[in-house]
Amino acid sequence: MDAAKHVVIIGGGFGGIAAARALKRAPIRLTMIDRRNHHLFQPLLYQVATAALNPSDIASPIRRILRRQRNASVILGEAVSIDTRKKIVQLLDGEVAYDYLIVASGATHSYFGHEEWMEPAPGLKTLEDAVEIRRRVLVAYEAAEREIDPVEVANWMTFVIIGGGPTGVEMAGALAEISQRVLERDFRRIDPGNARIVLIEAGPKVLPAMSPESSVSARRQLERLGVEIITDSPVTLVDDRGVTHGGIRLESRTAIWAAGVAASPLGKALGATTEAKLDRAGRVIVNQDLSVPGTDDVFVIGDLASISSDGKPVPGLSPAAMQEGRHAAKNVVRLIRGEPTLPFHYRDKGTLATIGKAAAVGDIGKLHVSGLVAWLMWLFVHLFFLIGFRNRFIVIIEWAWTYLRNDRGSRLITGDVEPLLERGAKSENRERMLSK
Amino acid sequence: MDAAKHVVIIGGGFGGIAAARALKRAPIRLTMIDRRNHHLFQPLLYQVATAALNPSDIASPIRRILRRQRNASVILGEAVSIDTRKKIVQLLDGEVAYDYLIVASGATHSYFGHEEWMEPAPGLKTLEDAVEIRRRVLVAYEAAEREIDPVEVANWMTFVIIGGGPTGVEMAGALAEISQRVLERDFRRIDPGNARIVLIEAGPKVLPAMSPESSVSARRQLERLGVEIITDSPVTLVDDRGVTHGGIRLESRTAIWAAGVAASPLGKALGATTEAKLDRAGRVIVNQDLSVPGTDDVFVIGDLASISSDGKPVPGLSPAAMQEGRHAAKNVVRLIRGEPTLPFHYRDKGTLATIGKAAAVGDIGKLHVSGLVAWLMWLFVHLFFLIGFRNRFIVIIEWAWTYLRNDRGSRLITGDVEPLLERGAKSENRERMLSK
Repeated sequence: MDAAKHVVIIGGGFGGIAAARALKRAPIRLTMIDRRNHHLFQPLLYQVATAALNPSDIASPIRRILRRQRNASVILGEAVSIDTRKKIVQLLDGEVAYDYLIVASGATHSYFGHEEWMEPAPGLKTLEDAVEIRRRVLVAYEAAEREIDPVEVANWMTFVIIGGGPTGVEMAGALAEISQRVLERDFRRIDPGNARIVLIEAGPKVLPAMSPESSVSARRQLERLGVEIITDSPVTLVDDRGVTHGGIRLESRTAIWAAGVAASPLGKALGATTEAKLDRAGRVIVNQDLSVPGTDDVFVIGDLASISSDGKPVPGLSPAAMQEGRHAAKNVVRLIRGEPTLPFHYRDKGTLATIGKAAAVGDIGKLHVSGLVAWLMWLFVHLFFLIGFRNRFIVIIEWAWTYLRNDRGSRLITGDVEPLLERGAKSENRERMLSK
Repeated sequence: MDAAKHVVIIGGGFGGIAAARALKRAPIRLTMIDRRNHHLFQPLLYQVATAALNPSDIASPIRRILRRQRNASVILGEAVSIDTRKKIVQLLDGEVAYDYLIVASGATHSYFGHEEWMEPAPGLKTLEDAVEIRRRVLVAYEAAEREIDPVEVANWMTFVIIGGGPTGVEMAGALAEISQRVLERDFRRIDPGNARIVLIEAGPKVLPAMSPESSVSARRQLERLGVEIITDSPVTLVDDRGVTHGGIRLESRTAIWAAGVAASPLGKALGATTEAKLDRAGRVIVNQDLSVPGTDDVFVIGDLASISSDGKPVPGLSPAAMQEGRHAAKNVVRLIRGEPTLPFHYRDKGTLATIGKAAAVGDIGKLHVSGLVAWLMWLFVHLFFLIGFRNRFIVIIEWAWTYLRNDRGSRLITGDVEPLLERGAKSENRERMLSK
């Protein structure tokens, strides 16, 4: 091993990858640790969940991304704790020593202490989540096609999305589109176009983080797609027969969780040997230079970091994570050179949320866009940032196909189906239906 | 329900789909039953297992295939038994009555009574199988990269394929290619180009069903790719540390089963109420018109049917299944018209097996082709028969990318990785390696 400083990055998301790339020419040894072998373009996960894209369209092997970066090596493994005194990252199976550490392990979904809601209402953070949701949605239509009890049919064809943030809005819009434009021609007994898609938000409006104009416009565009939107109605119960919100029971076989976000447990682990404090969401409250209080060689970025820039909290968005990643990398290099670190300043380039074909909203500074314009901007930005030319190329074709032909190629149900079919189904109904 | 006769097809494989399409204009009601929602282009499964193609590239929703066929409806369900007296197909959850039945439920892999070999050496019949094998192969390289004990590294980088038929030959060739051409640039400590790929065949030669010329040529082309071929050496033990064949122990962390094939259990079920006899492979010995002995309204086709044509047994290949499907459909229509059924004659259009880039073998009648010519024929035939223009289109692009750039986009490890990493791994070695 040479004398070059060893920089370790935990997490191959937007922040971690940006940090690694920014260190491309630095005189260091870089080790990227991730428990997945792929970088995931999370903003498009909902398109995998709704059969518009394939898993591999939005995921790129981390090894391929860093292939040409000679100072970088990649380890597939799960970081479980960090000892900032010994300067060691503990993995499930082994340990890695570092000189400088950048923690970018991100966030997962939070069920606000109701872990039992996870099974009936999976979230959307990983490729596995997306494939599971796709499976449940497609199986629901299959079950509805086989059911004769109209009540049961309605339950199978009711889809509840919990949470009115970007993910919830995008899922609701995409579900409405696949039901009305794609699946409709596939079935004989049911009409997927009649599916009920219900978006439940605990707060007063959808897309609360965006401007009032965009929030109102998003609601209007969703309703035009036939999505029912319920606001000011916190969910109090979720099981595999339905959802209870604000005292009202909503029967549904398929619920999707798009509500809470919880920071990675590594934040808490950092507290053990540092002065790191966590905010309510479990994120590490970092110094202005992104370093962890009480350390001068550990930085936290992305969804795991809690920081304000120019008096405003930095949002948990991929552009912010990438900016933080590049900044943390710069500060590491400055420390190696014996220079003081610099404070982080977030440059807000605006926010876009898509709702469907030619339907989206955006806030760019004081400007609010919606409809086709916002959608084209969204399309451009997402293709532009999709890592790996190949993915971008395939995705353009997949999208062209989806939007021109209203067809979706990846309508695959994989894994075991029977347990899903059996969820609350009355098989004697099927029986009568199938007999002559 | 109208008075039209109800024709039920069990299985949406090559045979079942061909039968359904042949009945497109028949004055009947058609119901297709499959426990999957997709038709699978099995000949290309090995390309999913070796990260060249996506699952959805080789699978097409059965509903989409039959979308425009107005007399057809599709049921997602698993047929468990058949009562030919009551004329009813029993599903796991319900039942379907028929006037005419075409059973095309195919085959699965057989471990010759050693079911315990299934876990250490998965077979390659479903999309799930392919994704699991892809996962194991990619994880093996990740584990090797993290290992320092040279013996353990060698074990992780040794891949054993059991069975020298088309699937085994194609897997071995594809594994050699991905190791030498694709993964090589991805790793820092190991050189995937040095991976050992061992093909073990119990009999005297690979591709036993093909001509001696093609068998010899396939062996030569495989060896040129660096594949070790062991013949006349039946496997006697498989566990997650390796494979024992002909008294020799071969240490390996990754084994793939491409040996035995067992017909669907529905064949046995048919025996209960008919005079159906099974051959050694568990296939139903059918009459010359593909009907089941003792019945005049039940037909068996594809891998589940045992039949000779012009004195030669009909091979278990997709062209045979498709020919049988069309023939069974024709006989059903003749019976409805009150006409006698016709005997089935197999038209052998030849056999192709691919080994790698510009490497393949083919028997077309008396003609034997190999190398680039055979490979181009293979390419053309497989693209031509790949169902659904969209898939074909995407696959062309994926292949162009794979072959021109030697890159593979779908190198994704999904699902839980740690259990695989732990298979026989000595973590203290990793530890030392990772520490400075």
